[in-house]
Amino acid sequence: MSQLVRFGVALEKNVLKEFDQLIRRRHYPTRSKAIGDLIRAELVNQQWESDILVTGVIALVYDHHRRDLVNHLVDVQHQFHPRIISSQHVHLDHHHCLEIIVAKGRAREVEELANLLQSVKGVKFGYLVRATTGKQL
Amino acid sequence: MSQLVRFGVALEKNVLKEFDQLIRRRHYPTRSKAIGDLIRAELVNQQWESDILVTGVIALVYDHHRRDLVNHLVDVQHQFHPRIISSQHVHLDHHHCLEIIVAKGRAREVEELANLLQSVKGVKFGYLVRATTGKQL
Amino acid sequence: MSQLVRFGVALEKNVLKEFDQLIRRRHYPTRSKAIGDLIRAELVNQQWESDILVTGVIALVYDHHRRDLVNHLVDVQHQFHPRIISSQHVHLDHHHCLEIIVAKGRAREVEELANLLQSVKGVKFGYLVRATTGKQL
Amino acid sequence: MSQLVRFGVALEKNVLKEFDQLIRRRHYPTRSKAIGDLIRAELVNQQWESDILVTGVIALVYDHHRRDLVNHLVDVQHQFHPRIISSQHVHLDHHHCLEIIVAKGRAREVEELANLLQSVKGVKFGYLVRATTGKQL
Repeated sequence: MSQLVRFGVALEKNVLKEFDQLIRRRHYPTRSKAIGDLIRAELVNQQWESDILVTGVIALVYDHHRRDLVNHLVDVQHQFHPRIISSQHVHLDHHHCLEIIVAKGRAREVEELANLLQSVKGVKFGYLVRATTGKQL
Repeated sequence: MSQLVRFGVALEKNVLKEFDQLIRRRHYPTRSKAIGDLIRAELVNQQWESDILVTGVIALVYDHHRRDLVNHLVDVQHQFHPRIISSQHVHLDHHHCLEIIVAKGRAREVEELANLLQSVKGVKFGYLVRATTGKQL
Repeated sequence: MSQLVRFGVALEKNVLKEFDQLIRRRHYPTRSKAIGDLIRAELVNQQWESDILVTGVIALVYDHHRRDLVNHLVDVQHQFHPRIISSQHVHLDHHHCLEIIVAKGRAREVEELANLLQSVKGVKFGYLVRATTGKQL
Repeated sequence: MSQLVRFGVALEKNVLKEFDQLIRRRHYPTRSKAIGDLIRAELVNQQWESDILVTGVIALVYDHHRRDLVNHLVDVQHQFHPRIISSQHVHLDHHHCLEIIVAKGRAREVEELANLLQSVKGVKFGYLVRATTGKQL
């Protein structure tokens, strides 16, 4: 973990008051944590725009009774094999699965993987979380 | 304008360094302005969730050769007459207009107005900016 | 306006039923208009990623009593003069103005303009609507 | 799986042409799948606004050397025990972990859980995927 530095911020009194109320509702222990989160979220967005090494979390919901679909998803994952770190399978009900795939790679590669998985017939919901390797944060 | 207060923030050294680079690229004069903008954007989101008095900016792109469309948009605006502050019309090319409507009201009212305008046949693009009256910011 | 074509879509019965309810609540006259809007919104996103000619709508809220601020905003707009089509000024209350600037240019230029305006000290809220010239829509 | 129905959509010829190009780049096998995905994404948004039963995927990145942090995250998860279905832990590098928590509950409960986890000191990145149980999709 990097060394902490302290710096001063000037803000309108009533804006600060409103912010303090908001972060209390969201259970933040300190202003520094809340402001740090806003800053880090901006930096992670930036990482994805710069196409550098990122971590992506792909969430898919589908009906697992479709065998061809499951095979298709496995095929795509094997094709991206060195990029995929892990995959988790959750049984939502008798029909529906939630599959969560964690991938590490350049931003455009991970987006391409997400497109390939989302577009498989039978996938009802797909979402790519543009996350981070944690480096420089 | 409300009185300025000054407070301290603790952040990891390398996160601060990355943030300083980002805000320089975005032309921010100071960290306080950049952090204040992140905070105010969160507060404005909150205003819309709380359904209080807000300002909305509705942008529409459409083909103005469709007379019925123009009349329909005017009718909707008259229906919401006390909520609509102003409206601006920009000629993008021979066919296309951009119309920008500014409305003030409770969040749900302004969203309903945006839905009514967006859904008019011939409107090719519609967007509601969830802005603010500026109060408490 | 381009010629209309008709094509068939296959969808699960209950998904269609839910969608029909949603678009009725949003006042859509037909499924075709609602589906067309979803499609066009995707295409406009794509236009911004491809950095082609776009229309941007920049909304700013600020306190107009700050003379330096107003001058600064005018300076930036003059600097981008050939890109800016129009600008509208709305008095929200005794203190606050909403200024809406319409710009046409390549996506990266319009984003740079939005950054320059948003970062001016005293601007409390800024938002760039990533809109379209209407071409190919 | 629900029965398929077929219906007709009318769209401008050049909009359809652009859309066909976009979905080919995203590897969609058919227009029906691509349009279905746009529709289902809208319905899932709606499910979260209506505060009904949803599935949430919470992704967190943190430094696992902070023992108090790990304990804190476990405590929060136990507190929400009946809502949490599973949790997966990925080692990103020597310092950083990615933890993915799957929760099922009413929208506001899952958002509260996400707030509680995100606000823990030492969490560098947090994101809530507003996903679905798959019902009615």
